[in-house]
Amino acid sequence: MSTKELFMNPYVSWMNGSGADGDVVLSSRVRLARNFCRIPFPNRADLAQLEKIQNIVASVLPDIEDVTDEPFEEIILDKLTKLEKNVLIEKHFISNNHIKNSQHREVLISDDGKVSIMVNEEDHLRIQCMVAGLDVKTPLKLALKIDDAIEAKVDIAFDEKMGYLTSCPTNLGTGLRASVMLHLPGLVFTQQISSIINISPQLGLAVRGLYGEGTEVLGNIFQISNQLTLGFTEQELVDNLTSAVKEIIAQERRARTALKLYSMDKLEDEVWRSFGVLKYAHSLSSKEALSFLSKVRLGMDMGIIKETVPEIFNELLVASRTNYLQNLQENENMSQSEIDKKRAEIVRKALKETSIGE
Amino acid sequence: MSTKELFMNPYVSWMNGSGADGDVVLSSRVRLARNFCRIPFPNRADLAQLEKIQNIVASVLPDIEDVTDEPFEEIILDKLTKLEKNVLIEKHFISNNHIKNSQHREVLISDDGKVSIMVNEEDHLRIQCMVAGLDVKTPLKLALKIDDAIEAKVDIAFDEKMGYLTSCPTNLGTGLRASVMLHLPGLVFTQQISSIINISPQLGLAVRGLYGEGTEVLGNIFQISNQLTLGFTEQELVDNLTSAVKEIIAQERRARTALKLYSMDKLEDEVWRSFGVLKYAHSLSSKEALSFLSKVRLGMDMGIIKETVPEIFNELLVASRTNYLQNLQENENMSQSEIDKKRAEIVRKALKETSIGE
Repeated sequence: MSTKELFMNPYVSWMNGSGADGDVVLSSRVRLARNFCRIPFPNRADLAQLEKIQNIVASVLPDIEDVTDEPFEEIILDKLTKLEKNVLIEKHFISNNHIKNSQHREVLISDDGKVSIMVNEEDHLRIQCMVAGLDVKTPLKLALKIDDAIEAKVDIAFDEKMGYLTSCPTNLGTGLRASVMLHLPGLVFTQQISSIINISPQLGLAVRGLYGEGTEVLGNIFQISNQLTLGFTEQELVDNLTSAVKEIIAQERRARTALKLYSMDKLEDEVWRSFGVLKYAHSLSSKEALSFLSKVRLGMDMGIIKETVPEIFNELLVASRTNYLQNLQENENMSQSEIDKKRAEIVRKALKETSIGE
Repeated sequence: MSTKELFMNPYVSWMNGSGADGDVVLSSRVRLARNFCRIPFPNRADLAQLEKIQNIVASVLPDIEDVTDEPFEEIILDKLTKLEKNVLIEKHFISNNHIKNSQHREVLISDDGKVSIMVNEEDHLRIQCMVAGLDVKTPLKLALKIDDAIEAKVDIAFDEKMGYLTSCPTNLGTGLRASVMLHLPGLVFTQQISSIINISPQLGLAVRGLYGEGTEVLGNIFQISNQLTLGFTEQELVDNLTSAVKEIIAQERRARTALKLYSMDKLEDEVWRSFGVLKYAHSLSSKEALSFLSKVRLGMDMGIIKETVPEIFNELLVASRTNYLQNLQENENMSQSEIDKKRAEIVRKALKETSIGE
């Protein structure tokens, strides 16, 4: 993937909607936090130390490319416009935190878009691997493989008792955060979602909105991740998350069946109206777009809209984001109404190309 | 037009949207109230007298057919189902009042649908003539021609001082009620409509909703008619109404121009969203349907929706009415949700056939 594509193309490979349990699970992601020995964490490091970290990363990059069998793009955040940085956030390649102070910050993104390694975020390295559907094992395996390649060359901060040392104590131990992105309109419509959110902490899990910590739930999309990192093996953490997610998937499917049985007429009407508005609106707010997209996707998954092209939903998740739209126009001074018009235009165009429901 | 068509076909000729000032005026209508001499008004007549009136009408019907050059269908209200009566009301051929007591009540409808003569409504005869667009003179001429044909054969109650005698004193004199059906979304959106409604009585005019006296305004459709019938000639009354309507048309057009200048983006979005919902909804309430249809029609008249087929709007005004829908299904026990589903189905089908906006 060229740098241009990275910013201009709404599509990223883990969005293709083809993965396991793709009717409910959008994507699975694993992130490992790692730090090099004898260099302060990025928040305490001086510029020379930050640069040294970049140099170490550069020295191990060929090994990473070797084990992943993918070329990587090295993107220096300081060289990006504000909009481009935000597009990378919208595509989940970097975090909000990563752009707060962008000096000597960079991200390595694999050509297939499945791996992104943030350099000098909160930790020296944050190795992120993403795949479509429910499959936490594959990205975990890949992340550990990358980690092994790095550890073969460089000393990583590790304590016999504590495990991997990290900037924030919540990441101590495995340094592992595994998360799954779920589309749960059935549980939202049947008002069962709150009980799932309430029970999650007791299972060592956190439930958040589309863009992680503290973000509002949009488009009925929820991110579920492990809270604990210490005292369990990577495998145990991943198994725990996976079995909880499987239970939620079963509940979501039951909720959809109930909707089919008891409110099919209402649901069918809402799904098609959402489709009609997306197809013809000339102005769409971000929130509206996600809400309508969620209903259309539900309609596709429930067979209400027959010609299923679920990847449209996933693609539009990015394509309708504000920063992506602004970057596409090469204009960060677009007014809200210009953004909403552009968003509607892109959605109309995408749906016209699929020409469902004619 | 066959009796079957009368009830099953949503289309009536004065709806074709082709008339003068058709961007604002849906139709013009004239109604003459007439009573035969020496027979009590219908509300005070006994059954034998009501029958006598029917017989007189039957005797002059050939003369009416002769001067109008149209065959008439004679429809005995007692022979209709409740639904069929309501369809005739929805099509503006008879009034609510006409079906209250349907014994010996009937209506004569011309083959082209432009003339309907209510027999034994509040007066012995109510001669109604309708045309598309703004043109009160043509239906007046036609109604007077029918009146002349009747008066050539039968004595009509007339007083030198008072003019034509009618059951209700508000109709004394000319017995003329002329009305114009206007689509005024511009004045509604720009909130200027109330000043027009407020000033109307001072001009001797009444402003009402789609189905006459006391009915709610739906779909931004207003009916404007003369209040006075006494002390003016028919010509004066018609000229007064026409010039007032012309002023309202000019104001409506100014309002639309203002909308174009100052809220085109918002308007365009609303118009297209309405179109999208009408095209895809699987359930539509009557009120919703009219509100969306009004916006789509406005969009057509303002060139936002380019392939103009304004008659769709007029046709759907009838096709989306509850009684018409029930009658179409031959089922007066349809639940509200069944009616709303059927309405959405009919609207979807009609819009699919026109395939605008692809």
